[in-house]
Amino acid sequence: MTFLPEARCSDPGCTDATRAVPAPFAEPRARLTAQRGTRRLQLSPKYGNGLREVDVSYAWHGAAGAPTVIVQGGISADRDVTALAGEAVSGWWHELVGEGAAIDLRHCRVLAIDWLTPAQLGTGSISSEDQADALVVLLAELRITRAYAFVGSSYGAMVGLAFASRHPLQVERLVLLAGAHRAHPLSTAQRSVQRGIVRLGQASGNVDEALALSRQLAITTYRGSAEFGRRFAGAPEFREDRFHFPVEDYLVHQGRRFVERFDADRFLALSESIDLHDVAPEQVPTPTTLIGFPSDRLVPLADLCELQRRLRGPATLEVVESPYGHDAFLKEPEQLAPLLREALA
Amino acid sequence: MTFLPEARCSDPGCTDATRAVPAPFAEPRARLTAQRGTRRLQLSPKYGNGLREVDVSYAWHGAAGAPTVIVQGGISADRDVTALAGEAVSGWWHELVGEGAAIDLRHCRVLAIDWLTPAQLGTGSISSEDQADALVVLLAELRITRAYAFVGSSYGAMVGLAFASRHPLQVERLVLLAGAHRAHPLSTAQRSVQRGIVRLGQASGNVDEALALSRQLAITTYRGSAEFGRRFAGAPEFREDRFHFPVEDYLVHQGRRFVERFDADRFLALSESIDLHDVAPEQVPTPTTLIGFPSDRLVPLADLCELQRRLRGPATLEVVESPYGHDAFLKEPEQLAPLLREALA
Repeated sequence: MTFLPEARCSDPGCTDATRAVPAPFAEPRARLTAQRGTRRLQLSPKYGNGLREVDVSYAWHGAAGAPTVIVQGGISADRDVTALAGEAVSGWWHELVGEGAAIDLRHCRVLAIDWLTPAQLGTGSISSEDQADALVVLLAELRITRAYAFVGSSYGAMVGLAFASRHPLQVERLVLLAGAHRAHPLSTAQRSVQRGIVRLGQASGNVDEALALSRQLAITTYRGSAEFGRRFAGAPEFREDRFHFPVEDYLVHQGRRFVERFDADRFLALSESIDLHDVAPEQVPTPTTLIGFPSDRLVPLADLCELQRRLRGPATLEVVESPYGHDAFLKEPEQLAPLLREALA
Repeated sequence: MTFLPEARCSDPGCTDATRAVPAPFAEPRARLTAQRGTRRLQLSPKYGNGLREVDVSYAWHGAAGAPTVIVQGGISADRDVTALAGEAVSGWWHELVGEGAAIDLRHCRVLAIDWLTPAQLGTGSISSEDQADALVVLLAELRITRAYAFVGSSYGAMVGLAFASRHPLQVERLVLLAGAHRAHPLSTAQRSVQRGIVRLGQASGNVDEALALSRQLAITTYRGSAEFGRRFAGAPEFREDRFHFPVEDYLVHQGRRFVERFDADRFLALSESIDLHDVAPEQVPTPTTLIGFPSDRLVPLADLCELQRRLRGPATLEVVESPYGHDAFLKEPEQLAPLLREALA
């Protein structure tokens, strides 16, 4: 896939480059556009008083004039859903979004935003509804009448439900992976401990170490039990005055990497936003495909069963076996591809 | 059950009261003795050099002259297995140990120790083998040729396996609840984060708050997912500048209670001891009854299946359905009683 610069966005609110490129091998040759920008939008946040102006950063890639598919991931994902040649962007879902991929950029345009934070809204907390409202206002700004689909994973699935509940005319179908109408109380418990660790670090001047520890805890909730069992069965090593267990070294590494790219206040707010999320499935009329993983301990399959039963619109639940737990939405592209193709057909 | 003071322990190493009491309603009337004491014993700790002297605190209650049953619980349990009238002791397993209970003090004497710590041994770490060795030396001190049974739960089950592996002639049967030959790497991950929290607190002068947070995390691993779901489905409350979730208030309460009765260094050492535990089941010839809980996420049932398959001696696995997860060994006395009676018959 080669992107050649062709045009600049004419909209003054669009700060980044906009490109229209020919897709060399596609038949018929789709004209692909790749747009990354920031728009100043007006929102009424759930936990604020009245209208606020906020800058929303987005990416909108795919076949010019094709239907738009919103794609949103977990709280640590961003608008860079797919890899773009010539940009230092890996794309957190590049195996599933691209030319010829399950979400095929030759036939649709993928729109995604960077999650908003309370700091941007001038509020203390942020809701999944606020994120949904930002997306719907952005659709209007980009002159998109309605999204062909909202494909959301984890927190993105929660925002998808909030979107369809509040703006049912602006989306035709939902595809929701590993996310439900509310957080499970055990998962809320695990996240509240994570937030407690970060607050303790903030109070004692050890923010980075606390954020890293908090991420370590999060990792223990994302991955499947069987995968941990297989990968980390080795013996501990004695060094630096104490025993270190193989899984501990892995967690420490993951924690450090997270601190390099994430901010404590952003983490606190988005983690809390998951636990504040509460959408009545009965208010969602949109046809929905749910995808769940039996090994997901963070979003139990039973909660997706309940969601399917309670949704107002037609809903199917696809169950995907995987050792990867909640992270299966990132780690099982081969199993997910046919399900996404079918849901978006 | 009434315990009347009758005699003092004649052994100079026995520091606490020893009582022999009549059991008023038992037929035939067993002479019950209740002894709490401390003995100075010699051990060769796994992570130390050579012999050390250590004070081991124990309790030994039940019918005089009856066979001795060792009963050990989790890392936060102590020698006070059962309630004794006239003492400020609740007994962490009082529903299952007593006159007429599943572990019937009219027909056996229950022996338990307070877990040793590295501080007592003068070592950096302590092993399940050290605890087992302390128990076997104590048996000799108390002139008990061999234990009729070792009934261990959680860490106590690990110590039971270490005991039977090292001292097979000193125990006739094992009854092991929610404990295996090694820790599951996911559980090691969760405990390593708990220890990381405590070390961060020690480094930054917030030990109590860190120990409480660490306990909060432990609680999320002890209880079943379904139980959390049922108890804590309510809405959050906004107070003191932020949202508080029902499960969070519960965890905060549990964390505070733990800090009142537990010490950070003791926690670090016993938590690590669980993860260092590694006994080859093939070296355990003792007839064994394993009891596991499908909802136990800390000690997966699959690990008990593997243990049963690999034990050298005859072994049965009893599976008990419960919503209480790992804590089912504390919360299901009615289901456990018949299994314990049968295993000890």
